[in-house]
Amino acid sequence: MLVRHLREEVLEANLELIRRGLVIYTFGNASGIDRDLGLVVIKPSGVPFDELVPENLVVADLQGRVLEGDLRPSSDLPTHLALYRAFPSIGGVVHTHSRYATAWAQACREIPCLGTTHADYFHGAVPVTEPLTAEEIEADYERHTGEVIVRRFANADPLEMPAVLVAGHGPFCWGKSPREAAEHAVLLEEVAALAYFTVALDPAAVPIPAALRDKHFYRKHGAAAYYGQPPR
Amino acid sequence: MLVRHLREEVLEANLELIRRGLVIYTFGNASGIDRDLGLVVIKPSGVPFDELVPENLVVADLQGRVLEGDLRPSSDLPTHLALYRAFPSIGGVVHTHSRYATAWAQACREIPCLGTTHADYFHGAVPVTEPLTAEEIEADYERHTGEVIVRRFANADPLEMPAVLVAGHGPFCWGKSPREAAEHAVLLEEVAALAYFTVALDPAAVPIPAALRDKHFYRKHGAAAYYGQPPR
Amino acid sequence: MLVRHLREEVLEANLELIRRGLVIYTFGNASGIDRDLGLVVIKPSGVPFDELVPENLVVADLQGRVLEGDLRPSSDLPTHLALYRAFPSIGGVVHTHSRYATAWAQACREIPCLGTTHADYFHGAVPVTEPLTAEEIEADYERHTGEVIVRRFANADPLEMPAVLVAGHGPFCWGKSPREAAEHAVLLEEVAALAYFTVALDPAAVPIPAALRDKHFYRKHGAAAYYGQPPR
Amino acid sequence: MLVRHLREEVLEANLELIRRGLVIYTFGNASGIDRDLGLVVIKPSGVPFDELVPENLVVADLQGRVLEGDLRPSSDLPTHLALYRAFPSIGGVVHTHSRYATAWAQACREIPCLGTTHADYFHGAVPVTEPLTAEEIEADYERHTGEVIVRRFANADPLEMPAVLVAGHGPFCWGKSPREAAEHAVLLEEVAALAYFTVALDPAAVPIPAALRDKHFYRKHGAAAYYGQPPR
Repeated sequence: MLVRHLREEVLEANLELIRRGLVIYTFGNASGIDRDLGLVVIKPSGVPFDELVPENLVVADLQGRVLEGDLRPSSDLPTHLALYRAFPSIGGVVHTHSRYATAWAQACREIPCLGTTHADYFHGAVPVTEPLTAEEIEADYERHTGEVIVRRFANADPLEMPAVLVAGHGPFCWGKSPREAAEHAVLLEEVAALAYFTVALDPAAVPIPAALRDKHFYRKHGAAAYYGQPPR
Repeated sequence: MLVRHLREEVLEANLELIRRGLVIYTFGNASGIDRDLGLVVIKPSGVPFDELVPENLVVADLQGRVLEGDLRPSSDLPTHLALYRAFPSIGGVVHTHSRYATAWAQACREIPCLGTTHADYFHGAVPVTEPLTAEEIEADYERHTGEVIVRRFANADPLEMPAVLVAGHGPFCWGKSPREAAEHAVLLEEVAALAYFTVALDPAAVPIPAALRDKHFYRKHGAAAYYGQPPR
Repeated sequence: MLVRHLREEVLEANLELIRRGLVIYTFGNASGIDRDLGLVVIKPSGVPFDELVPENLVVADLQGRVLEGDLRPSSDLPTHLALYRAFPSIGGVVHTHSRYATAWAQACREIPCLGTTHADYFHGAVPVTEPLTAEEIEADYERHTGEVIVRRFANADPLEMPAVLVAGHGPFCWGKSPREAAEHAVLLEEVAALAYFTVALDPAAVPIPAALRDKHFYRKHGAAAYYGQPPR
Repeated sequence: MLVRHLREEVLEANLELIRRGLVIYTFGNASGIDRDLGLVVIKPSGVPFDELVPENLVVADLQGRVLEGDLRPSSDLPTHLALYRAFPSIGGVVHTHSRYATAWAQACREIPCLGTTHADYFHGAVPVTEPLTAEEIEADYERHTGEVIVRRFANADPLEMPAVLVAGHGPFCWGKSPREAAEHAVLLEEVAALAYFTVALDPAAVPIPAALRDKHFYRKHGAAAYYGQPPR
């Protein structure tokens, strides 16, 4: 069996989504990549999360050819692959329809950075994609979904902004590993909820100052980080 | 005992409602039909969900005559029967008072199709019925509730729109089986919540384009569906 | 030990409040009355719900004299007693700070009857009390809280409207038994939530017609009720 | 091992935060102080709550020198220490990013005392700090966070107002013990939720009268308290 260890990581990332209440039934999916082998492991399409085992995950290459697995991969596989091809620094991708993040995506509003909880994980406003054209929807829809995300990140570092809202659809998140991608999906939902309640209390709420945003982001990320324990 | 297998399916559909938090106490009910025998199995009236067993479900014919069961059927039985008579393609019906769907029903607002989560299961706005007249309320209220739903679907395919909001009351859902009807009730609640949060973020939010709506609905339903696993 | 059976009923009503998420820590309280003996059983003050046993509940008479129990009774006992004295048809009283019902009480807004879920249990708008005067607050505050409720019900049947919102405070509910009082507290919270979401969707939402309200209330209550199972 | 009993109290306070849903992953932290020894015990930085044991908590003195522990203390330790130094009456401090309290902090709005639930625990509006200056953010950010809180309490008794909202950040709470600090964090979240729903129902909602606020606060706190059981 190919990439056994990655299968287990991807399974665990999928299970995190259901444990945290981000998905119901067959909503959403998580994947991971082995960069050395060029292999992606992803949830099979339409299979409930509680029926997942390492063996029924699907292995594909970066062109979407299924190399191992009896089941069809998630129909969103081409979106994941577009992200893996464009963002070499990422190791996992997660898609959900979690409530607050999806509401912001449906309202086509970016999530402003209204507090330090947001700045701890997302360096600035979480962006929204442009809508897809009718042509992009008709053919290769899922690949185009990935490409519209990639275009939105032309000038951004995906590890400083590990999430996006696809307009009218919902969030995609990523990270250095499948586990980190799933955590970012959980954190995005939390941040989306906080921002929802904040703008309800003050429709004119403004983002926190750049100094505070940077302080929080960089005390957790990068060379000068001092949050957490040193790597062992 | 009649229709033992159907009893188990209907029991399971009722239990799904309580597991997913859509009902409390004795709110709501699920039923199923055996089209060959013309028999409907439904929850007994006023019995808590955790006391349900296959044996205390009630079996009736399409005219509402109870054929088996010591308990009274759900008082909403005539509503279910009106739906079974009018919609030959459906095999299960579910009624709940789930929070967000009921709020839309109480506000007498259809749920617009604001995102792909909605379009995955409901092909367009989830409609609201006309209010019942005082005469329709006085006599045969529950049958008239069914008929006001059926009138609303004069030009609609109930399998493309497996839910309705009864004005001032709450949702009724259906599907090819009791299980599918219960799932549609869960999915409607999720979609109703997403739409609630979306219009709070943008009161002027508009439905997604028809191309995106159709893409999502038909990648899951109909001859060209490619979501999920092929039937085995 | 006095009124052992009533102690168990009151314990169970208190536990229902914590099971349903209506109370945390030492919030809220439930009581019951034995009308023949003139004895009231109530939760002790400031004791967490998970430490309650039949033995540590407190027994008092209708004048508030503690007849059995090592612990102080709930500080709200005089409110409960005022209700028992004024409403001879009730057998249980419950007070909570449940979220949505309390929000309506804090906003000093009655909960309008916006749907059939409400009409199934509460015959019309759930009323709000007048505010207490400074004098009523200074001395015998808890008894005055009961009296301001009783004044609000001068022309109402407490079994047709088994709940009230004390302005700036929260809900009190009652019923024919402690169990029914606790269920009414749960149902009030559900109805308060539905109404909250409804007015968010439509600030101008109006109550359902009287015909629909009466249909739902009286199909569950009174001589012509046909919901549920016949008494055995 | 130093202050073993305090370690257990602090562990328990941290666990209360996760049990009550106030924190996810590594959000938030609780600490406690032994005033006689001048020792503070605090959660280690970036460690998930379910991996906490008394042994991996960190012991520091009031100047922030770590005296025992292999792990780095919470990065918020200097904030906790500033509070312990300024408020001699407190024995525990808790920080969370709980949803409703954080939303008020992000909206930079104090939480008005809109009901008796609030007045039971917080004597008046829960205040918001001034924003930190860019200089305060750049260097010794966490200590400055504590100092901006302390400045806000120049004329307040921290035991009458055991919580504050740090603007753009979230709540800090305290109490006579770590347990009480954690309870105040739970109660603040509840009060923040009630106030959120109340201002949604009535944007012009006003605080309850001072007489009612004082009645509720002082029936639970101070020499004339009569809520709960007498100390044993």
